[in-house]
Amino acid sequence: MAGEPGQGRKDARKADVVVIGAGLAGLVAARQLVAAGRSVVVLEARDRVGGRLLNEPLGEGKVVEVGGQWVGPSQRRMLALADSLGIDTFPTHGSGQNVIEYDGSLIRYTGTIPRISTSVLLDVEQARQRLGAMARQVPVEAPWRASRAEEWDGQTFATWLRRNVVTNGARSLLQLATEAVWAAQPEDVSLLHVLFYMHSAGGLDALLDTEGGAQQDRFVGGSQLVAQKLAEPLGEQIMLGHPVRRLELSDESIRVFSDGAILRASRVILALPPTLTGRLVYDPPLPGYRDQLTQRMPQGAVTKCMAVYDEPFWRGEGLSGQAVSTTGPVKLVFDNSPPDGSPGVILGFLEGRQARELGRVPLDERRAAVVGCFERFFGARAAEPERYIERSWAEEEWTRGCYGCYFTPGGWTGYGPALREPIGRIHWAGAETATVWNGYMDGAVQSGERAAREVIAAE
Amino acid sequence: MAGEPGQGRKDARKADVVVIGAGLAGLVAARQLVAAGRSVVVLEARDRVGGRLLNEPLGEGKVVEVGGQWVGPSQRRMLALADSLGIDTFPTHGSGQNVIEYDGSLIRYTGTIPRISTSVLLDVEQARQRLGAMARQVPVEAPWRASRAEEWDGQTFATWLRRNVVTNGARSLLQLATEAVWAAQPEDVSLLHVLFYMHSAGGLDALLDTEGGAQQDRFVGGSQLVAQKLAEPLGEQIMLGHPVRRLELSDESIRVFSDGAILRASRVILALPPTLTGRLVYDPPLPGYRDQLTQRMPQGAVTKCMAVYDEPFWRGEGLSGQAVSTTGPVKLVFDNSPPDGSPGVILGFLEGRQARELGRVPLDERRAAVVGCFERFFGARAAEPERYIERSWAEEEWTRGCYGCYFTPGGWTGYGPALREPIGRIHWAGAETATVWNGYMDGAVQSGERAAREVIAAE
Repeated sequence: MAGEPGQGRKDARKADVVVIGAGLAGLVAARQLVAAGRSVVVLEARDRVGGRLLNEPLGEGKVVEVGGQWVGPSQRRMLALADSLGIDTFPTHGSGQNVIEYDGSLIRYTGTIPRISTSVLLDVEQARQRLGAMARQVPVEAPWRASRAEEWDGQTFATWLRRNVVTNGARSLLQLATEAVWAAQPEDVSLLHVLFYMHSAGGLDALLDTEGGAQQDRFVGGSQLVAQKLAEPLGEQIMLGHPVRRLELSDESIRVFSDGAILRASRVILALPPTLTGRLVYDPPLPGYRDQLTQRMPQGAVTKCMAVYDEPFWRGEGLSGQAVSTTGPVKLVFDNSPPDGSPGVILGFLEGRQARELGRVPLDERRAAVVGCFERFFGARAAEPERYIERSWAEEEWTRGCYGCYFTPGGWTGYGPALREPIGRIHWAGAETATVWNGYMDGAVQSGERAAREVIAAE
Repeated sequence: MAGEPGQGRKDARKADVVVIGAGLAGLVAARQLVAAGRSVVVLEARDRVGGRLLNEPLGEGKVVEVGGQWVGPSQRRMLALADSLGIDTFPTHGSGQNVIEYDGSLIRYTGTIPRISTSVLLDVEQARQRLGAMARQVPVEAPWRASRAEEWDGQTFATWLRRNVVTNGARSLLQLATEAVWAAQPEDVSLLHVLFYMHSAGGLDALLDTEGGAQQDRFVGGSQLVAQKLAEPLGEQIMLGHPVRRLELSDESIRVFSDGAILRASRVILALPPTLTGRLVYDPPLPGYRDQLTQRMPQGAVTKCMAVYDEPFWRGEGLSGQAVSTTGPVKLVFDNSPPDGSPGVILGFLEGRQARELGRVPLDERRAAVVGCFERFFGARAAEPERYIERSWAEEEWTRGCYGCYFTPGGWTGYGPALREPIGRIHWAGAETATVWNGYMDGAVQSGERAAREVIAAE
C-alpha cells in the first residue's frame, strides 16, 4: 500500500545498534559502540553530520559557525574529545572595551562589570547568589526530587524574578541573561528547569561568562569539525539523507524505516531533541507517559546573525566587539572573527521574543534591524558589511529550535523520569538528556557516552 | 525508495478539499463543504469516526461514552447539530444527596454548596469573582491582546492561586476544579489560558456546573452517535484507516499521502489536536513560527473509569452518585447510568497528576485504587462491580491526551496568532482552535464551520 514504508520489501541491512541522528551525541555513541565491538549504523536525515554544529565557509579555508560554537574550561568531556581528534581551541576575542546599551545610552567598560547603577548591580548580585543556593539543592539526575521541586516547578522564572528582584534594571539584565541561555523569555520557562540547568553547568557564572565560562574558547576549524572528524572513521556506517519515519519494536529486535533504507537492529539510540522523538511513528505506540513528555519540552527560538567586514575595525578603535543591550533587538554581540582576525566578523543573536517576531518579517527588514544594532554599538563602519549571514533554527526541519529545549512549568515534576528511561529496545541520547552541561556540546558528549553504556550493559 | 510514501505511484483520487481527521470538527467541516457543492474526502487514521467521541456498548443496545459525553445549555451549536440529526438529550442524573470528601471526612449535601467551612466557601467565592472579572478582559479571538496579557501569560495558574487564595481548603477545591476542566495541574497551565478558556465558555460556573453548565445533559445513544450520523451521508467520502503522513504543497494544489491512498486537493483542513499537526511531514516544511506553536500546546492527561453494577443502588440510598474528593485519586464522580437507569454506572475521573501516576501501574492496581474510591463514597456495594471500563487518552496514538490541550506559560503571547492562521492551502480546525467553548464539542463544531467558511471564501 502507498505510504506504508517498506511494505513488502526486504530488510536492507542489519546492525547490533542503529543510532538515529548524526549530531554530536549520536556520533559519540556510535564511536563508543564500535570501540566495544558492536556493529553500528547511524541514520541521519540531513546530507551532513553535526546536527546543530554547522560551519559556514568564509573563503580561503576559513569558517564561522552558524550553530553552536563555544567551549568552556569546565566542559572537560568536550575538550578531551576535541583534543583526541587533534582539534585546537583559541580564545574568544575579548581585549578592548566592551559596550553596554542600558537605559537608552551606550557605555564602554573594561572587565566584567559595567559602570551602571550600583543598586542595579547589587540587585543582580543578590539574585545571583540566591539562585545559586537554590540551584545547588536540585539533584541533576532527578530534579523532581528537590525538596521544593513542586513549588519551583509550579512557577515560571518570570514569577521568581518579579518577586525577588527589586529594580527594573536588574530585571532587564536577568531577562537578557535568560534569553542568552535558553533562547526563551523568563515567562516561558519553569523555575525548576532554570535551577536544574544552572546546577548542571556548575552555576550561573559558568553559563554566562566568556572568560572562565561557556563562551571562553572556540574551535580552530569550527565546531562542526569535531563532528566531521568523529564521523570519518565511521565511514559508510553513517547513512546521510535517511530521515527515519517509523520504528517497529518486537521482543527480539527493532526495525527502523527511513527514507531510503530499512534496518534491523538489536537496539536503537535516538539522539534527537525530545520534541522530534515524539514525531516518529512507533509500532506499538510509545507509552502515553513518554509521549506526553515530548509535548512539554519545546525548543528555544534563536537566529544567529553575522556581519562580515574586510577587517575587525572595532579592535583598532579599542573595542572588544562584545556588547550587550537591554534595548535590542540584538541584545548580545561578540567578535566572531577567525583566529587570525581576518575577515572581521560581528556576531549578534536574536533570541526568544526577538527571534519570534523578526522571524516573521522579510529578510531585508531583519537584516536592517540587526545591522542597525551593530551600527549603534560600533559606529558607522558597521553599517556596511560585505556579507550578512543568518540562520534561524526554528525553520530547520531536523532541529526545530535552538539552542536546546526547556521544560515548561510542571514538566519536570510531571514527566521527568521519562526523559532517559529506555522504552524496550529504545535508548535516549542528546544534549537535552544530559545531567552535566545539559543543552551544551559537553552534555551531548555525556549523553552519547551514557546511552552507549546502557546499550552495552543491556545485552 | 523505501519509506518515501507513494513514490512512483499515481494519485488515487482528487477532491476540492481533503479533511484530515473524522472527529466532530472534521465531519462538520466536510458536511458544510459538501452542502456548498465542494467535492470532499475525509481521511481518518482510526477505523471509526468520532475522534474523542467513543461509545462503549453495555449490551441490550445501551452504551456509555469513554470519551467526551456532556452538553450544556449554552452550547447552542452542538445542541442544534444534535437536534438536526434527530438525537435527543437527557439530564445527567442529579437527584439525591451529593458526597464531598474533604479534609479526610465524607459529607453528604444537597444543592450545589456543601456544608464545609464558611471561610473556605467565601475564599472560593472571592477567587471566582476575581477570575471572572479578569477573564472578561481577555479577547477570545486574540488573548494576547488583553491589556495584562504578558503578566498573565508569564505565570502559572498555581502562582495566581498561591497569591490570591488564602485558605488551604479553597486552594484544594480550585486545584480540583483545574484538574476537572484541563486534566492538568494548576502548575502546568498559563493563567492567561485559564482566563481565556473561562471567557470562551462564558465563565467558570459554566465550565464546572452540572445543572446550567457543561455537564447538564447527555445524548441518548451516546455522543459518538452525533459523529456517526454526521458521517452517514458522507459515505465513501470518508476513508477510515488512512493515517496521513505527509503533505506536499505547491502553488496550485496540495498532495496528501496517507497509509493506503494519495490524494490531490485544492485545499486541506487539518482537524487534529495542534500537537499532532506538528508530527506530520510537510514539504516544504512548516514555518518555524507555526511549528514552535505545536511544541507549546500539550494535551492533558485523563483516564475515564467506570464501574458497572446491576442497578444504581446508590439512588435507593438517597445518593445522587455525584461526588468530589480532595483526597483522590478519583476526585470527581458522576452517576453515568443509561437513561432508563439500568445498569447502574459510576463514572470517575483520574486527572492530571493522578492520571500520570496511576497510568504507570498495572491495570489491577489502578482498578483497585479507583473502585476503592467508589467504595469510600458509596459504600460496600460499590466494591464489587460487574464490569470495570477505562480509557486513558494519553495512550491513544491518534489523540495523545484529553480532554483537550492547554497553552503553557508564554505560549499565547509568543505564538498565539499562529493558531488559526492558514499556511498556504492548509486550514486549521479542531476544538482547540475555537473561540467559543474552546476544547468542547461545541468548540469543535464552531471550528469546523469556521474552517469550511475560510476554504469557501479562499477560492
